[in-house]
Amino acid sequence: MSIKKFINKKSKAYQAWLSYEKLSDNYLNKNEELLSNISVYGKTNLSASIKEELKRALPKFLAADFKLNFKDRYQNKILIAAETEVKEIAAGSKEISSILNNVEFGELDEEGYLIKYFKEQDLLLLTAASDQGLLYGVFALLREIQQENDLLELDLLSNPKNNLRMLNHWDNLDGSIERGYAGKSIFYKDNQLVNDLKRIRDYARMLASIGINALSINNVNVSYQETRLIDDKIEMVITIADILRDYGITTYLSANYASPMQLSSIDTADPLDEKVRLWWKEKTAEIYDEIPDFGGFVVKADSEGRPGPFTYGRSHADGANMMAEALEPHGGLLIWRCFVYNCQQDWRDKETDRARAAYDNFKDLDGQFKENVLLQIKNGPMDFQVREPITPLFGAMPETNQVLELQVTQEYTGQQKDLCYLIPQWKKVTDFDTYAEGENTPVKRIVDGSTYNQKNTGFAAVVNVGNDQNWTGHHLAQANLYGYGRLAWNPDLSAVKITEEWIKITFGQDQEVMESLLRMLLYSWSIYEDYTSPLGIGWMVNPGHHYGVNVNGYEYSRWGTYHRADHEGIGVDRSVATGTGYAGQYFKENAEKYETIENCPDELLLFFHHVPYTHELDSGKTVIQHIYDSHFRGVAAVKELQGHWEKLEEKVDSEIFENVNKRLKMQLDNAVEWRDQVNTYFHRISGIDDKFDRKIY
Amino acid sequence: MSIKKFINKKSKAYQAWLSYEKLSDNYLNKNEELLSNISVYGKTNLSASIKEELKRALPKFLAADFKLNFKDRYQNKILIAAETEVKEIAAGSKEISSILNNVEFGELDEEGYLIKYFKEQDLLLLTAASDQGLLYGVFALLREIQQENDLLELDLLSNPKNNLRMLNHWDNLDGSIERGYAGKSIFYKDNQLVNDLKRIRDYARMLASIGINALSINNVNVSYQETRLIDDKIEMVITIADILRDYGITTYLSANYASPMQLSSIDTADPLDEKVRLWWKEKTAEIYDEIPDFGGFVVKADSEGRPGPFTYGRSHADGANMMAEALEPHGGLLIWRCFVYNCQQDWRDKETDRARAAYDNFKDLDGQFKENVLLQIKNGPMDFQVREPITPLFGAMPETNQVLELQVTQEYTGQQKDLCYLIPQWKKVTDFDTYAEGENTPVKRIVDGSTYNQKNTGFAAVVNVGNDQNWTGHHLAQANLYGYGRLAWNPDLSAVKITEEWIKITFGQDQEVMESLLRMLLYSWSIYEDYTSPLGIGWMVNPGHHYGVNVNGYEYSRWGTYHRADHEGIGVDRSVATGTGYAGQYFKENAEKYETIENCPDELLLFFHHVPYTHELDSGKTVIQHIYDSHFRGVAAVKELQGHWEKLEEKVDSEIFENVNKRLKMQLDNAVEWRDQVNTYFHRISGIDDKFDRKIY
Repeated sequence: MSIKKFINKKSKAYQAWLSYEKLSDNYLNKNEELLSNISVYGKTNLSASIKEELKRALPKFLAADFKLNFKDRYQNKILIAAETEVKEIAAGSKEISSILNNVEFGELDEEGYLIKYFKEQDLLLLTAASDQGLLYGVFALLREIQQENDLLELDLLSNPKNNLRMLNHWDNLDGSIERGYAGKSIFYKDNQLVNDLKRIRDYARMLASIGINALSINNVNVSYQETRLIDDKIEMVITIADILRDYGITTYLSANYASPMQLSSIDTADPLDEKVRLWWKEKTAEIYDEIPDFGGFVVKADSEGRPGPFTYGRSHADGANMMAEALEPHGGLLIWRCFVYNCQQDWRDKETDRARAAYDNFKDLDGQFKENVLLQIKNGPMDFQVREPITPLFGAMPETNQVLELQVTQEYTGQQKDLCYLIPQWKKVTDFDTYAEGENTPVKRIVDGSTYNQKNTGFAAVVNVGNDQNWTGHHLAQANLYGYGRLAWNPDLSAVKITEEWIKITFGQDQEVMESLLRMLLYSWSIYEDYTSPLGIGWMVNPGHHYGVNVNGYEYSRWGTYHRADHEGIGVDRSVATGTGYAGQYFKENAEKYETIENCPDELLLFFHHVPYTHELDSGKTVIQHIYDSHFRGVAAVKELQGHWEKLEEKVDSEIFENVNKRLKMQLDNAVEWRDQVNTYFHRISGIDDKFDRKIY
Repeated sequence: MSIKKFINKKSKAYQAWLSYEKLSDNYLNKNEELLSNISVYGKTNLSASIKEELKRALPKFLAADFKLNFKDRYQNKILIAAETEVKEIAAGSKEISSILNNVEFGELDEEGYLIKYFKEQDLLLLTAASDQGLLYGVFALLREIQQENDLLELDLLSNPKNNLRMLNHWDNLDGSIERGYAGKSIFYKDNQLVNDLKRIRDYARMLASIGINALSINNVNVSYQETRLIDDKIEMVITIADILRDYGITTYLSANYASPMQLSSIDTADPLDEKVRLWWKEKTAEIYDEIPDFGGFVVKADSEGRPGPFTYGRSHADGANMMAEALEPHGGLLIWRCFVYNCQQDWRDKETDRARAAYDNFKDLDGQFKENVLLQIKNGPMDFQVREPITPLFGAMPETNQVLELQVTQEYTGQQKDLCYLIPQWKKVTDFDTYAEGENTPVKRIVDGSTYNQKNTGFAAVVNVGNDQNWTGHHLAQANLYGYGRLAWNPDLSAVKITEEWIKITFGQDQEVMESLLRMLLYSWSIYEDYTSPLGIGWMVNPGHHYGVNVNGYEYSRWGTYHRADHEGIGVDRSVATGTGYAGQYFKENAEKYETIENCPDELLLFFHHVPYTHELDSGKTVIQHIYDSHFRGVAAVKELQGHWEKLEEKVDSEIFENVNKRLKMQLDNAVEWRDQVNTYFHRISGIDDKFDRKIY
């Protein structure tokens, strides 16, 4: 029995950061004339989406009964037109012609936009090289307006830093979502498309508003039904692609590496087998016949039980190139995940180190991949833990396209019950200096293609969206989705800037709301880390579903995930000198930093070293005292989160208030359980008392 | 998709201990004439079953082409007839008349039998007070024959010590079996009866052969479908009861305490509510209309989430008596389980002690239960662990009928992958001196009704049978079923006697087979204990399914199941002086024994006390060294089991050989994992090295 969900599309929770609230009287007085006189050029579907969005937004900004009429002549206050059209208008207008020299068309990339106010002409120009750029520009302009920024000061040229700005859906056709914490799929139900296509369209709007341009629409673990998406179920893909296309989003599919074996009579998936190669070529051509702008495939191969080229004694380059070759004539991309490791490890084996796996499996293949192959690499070497080092593979393959994979869905970070705003974590990742080309080669300059002059690079992330009313389960988890998009567009944006932007366009201008939410969001990752696993050691979660504490949950398992705590100390020795050698996978500066206990930053100490509980951290505390202190502090901080939120009851939408309020209660329960189990475990095993004699059970 | 199982009913594995193998020439020469001349009296269905069994057995004993013709006159060598019939025959026969004075009819209970050879008359008489007694006698006689015991020496009067000799099926109507390790249900599939009713009949034969006289045929956790067995699905019960009746087995049902709420419009299950009482009376009368010899109900109430009288502020006596009252006019029994404890415990709480629960919940209700209420009490206070003390409630309720509950299905004892022969464990239970009426008041004298002059008492056990070819998954697990029945009939039988009997009638007379199997079976419990949780502490299993090691699996849970290991010591203090007081629930002699570390037997030390790893056991070893030694020893012993078995390859049926061989391999894997995880865990937490410097990871 399935309970039919009632979705109220007018609720603020559903509208997310696109609810377009009425502007303040003050701001309106100043800008009403400007905002009431807009002309939009363009005849593409994207232009239609732009107009639709403006028609949705402006009446709400200005007043309930306002009706937007687009003027088709340039004399209006706001002109929205692509470069070609601006130049056409200029030909017949001295006024427009007079500004042309001051418009930096040459600096606009394919997807970039320019928003600029010309005082003399009293004209706000939004232009771009393409309608797609215009679409992003319109959402940027609406964002500026909702924040009540001064439009007359606008001079904003923005190009995306990354060509690929992708989200991965781990949705299955039966409607379930692997690692989904916000209800069921918004795409599928009972192996069919959902009835509510309008919701998919609203989702596309949200994504376009933050600059997402690529979406893979099914789980990377591709099962029987999902494999059929490139076969007799392709109608489903066509329908979704049609919707996404209107918002500049390219559709990708996760492909089953063994598809020919399921879908044809071929009994192998050997990448060097001619029958297999031909099958993929023909199959791919069929897809492009139906969806000419199809993006390509995402592939998880030879990973956690998925089929792959290893079965046939072939390399990952063989496997990826074979599929890339089929996509090449159509301009498609082949995105190959590097999450390949031995998941049948013996806990007794201290030589094998899962952290080494991506580097060990891929580094030597540099230069062997085709131009349209992109390697998608998780931010950390393990699996989206609350704290991990950065994967050393970034920057280590100069001749290979690299994509950074993040996880917006909060698998190990509270599952959208606990508040854990991840932008600060991601900033650490993107700003991490790999030293690949000497100092100042951060990850973001690898995956934006600038270091090695590549174009098929960028960001990908597993999304946190389901069919809950508010899309993300925890309302504040919307900020992770928003922030991911903004960061993928421009990783140089600061966490504070992104967060302030999201708060303003979601909750408005109130100063107390701003201050409380800024504090809640920006500290939440650190709070979550405080009450969960300490000093970079990770795991300690319940096996399988990964929510809640279980200190030994992964200690005697086959997953390569150990803390090695004994009565004297804890941590995994990954040094070159005495450990697994993982530290040596980094470029020299980082390798030296991680190699020794002295140089290794505390926050990753237990990831790289096994140390006694009595080891003194940089903070002056011992490891054991740090464990106790951080866990008591973490719970106290969750109570403070509750305090902050409760004070906002009168100031935020009641549905959102209740949603967050309930989840903060769950978070407190979770934090208390983490605190008590972790403290008790380490008190029992170390025999060392808390300096402050607090309650440890 | 369900895979249809092919069951070969002629295989030895299926025939179990009733395969009736050809006797040795030597034995045949001596007994062929006797065995070829049998007359059987009686016209009941039970008599028909007797004749059927003889027709099955004797031709196989004697030769393949032998055809048994029952003589209808007493002059035969073997006379099988109930007391009344023997006396009728005697009236017309001097020969029979001449033995009457030497037949102890007066000592035969309702279900007992007498097998006696009269030399002068060259007559083997099998008689009983009832056809049910005759049936048991026939199976006893066949057992004697298969063992090739001297028939001319037979003078065997046997009455069952326990009136109730019950097995509980935890079968669900969908065909699944809770804690079942031998396939699916032999009764149900897809909420219907299975097609193979013949198999149920074969099962009834097996049970009759070991004296079982009561069977509850559905899971004590009674769900929606199963609740309907007393309503619109009663036809299923009628069919099963009809089969079981032919073998003297009374059918019981597990009843949902809240049945009136599911099956009628009554919105309460309050036992003092008149509507509820009336509903049960009418419902019960309906059942007896259909099944006049229906046995009664087994009830799990207020336990692990099941409904019960506590919901209405009533006592267990109120609840049980209400249902017993409905059964009373029909002679039915109400069997009420005492497995009632708080399963929402906080691991931080060291006051609450699950071990206390049965005693605390039931002791004070003594004298309040109706005559036809039986309290079914698990052997230990926790839950069928490999080693537990005996539940102190036995003997503590002189005015209440008590039934001992054992677990034949190996939930915590290897799940029929690992060999764990439980008769030695059960003997410990039945022989445990409660001191209820001074020295020598063992559990077996409580539950056989002799101590307090009760008739509604006995044995119950959760059975280990499913639709695997060999019934029990592991072929040698058949011995647990066999032994349970024999022990329920007569708890004074020795483990060796029962085991030898089973080996002979299952595997024949070979001396090497006998010696190897005796050793394997009799040591297997101790071996299993060696490599699993030490010194009575229990648990340390994987949560949920309960197979395999997980030292902390139940340590931070809500189930009241803790080892409290820290870096100095391990164990739960259940003394009166400083612990939970559980030890004080025993009668004085036992209470004093368990109260102190000095007096408490080592095998239960950690159940009753928290001691340092350096505590010296009676064996002279420290606790930690005992942990290491027993775990290394346990694995070595499993290898020895393999060695014993491999030597029997040519001597046992190949299907059985392969079955056991495969499972011994699984057992070794399991034992190695237990050894390494337990040793590593305690080495890490204690920091104390193994004296013999063996490999600890």
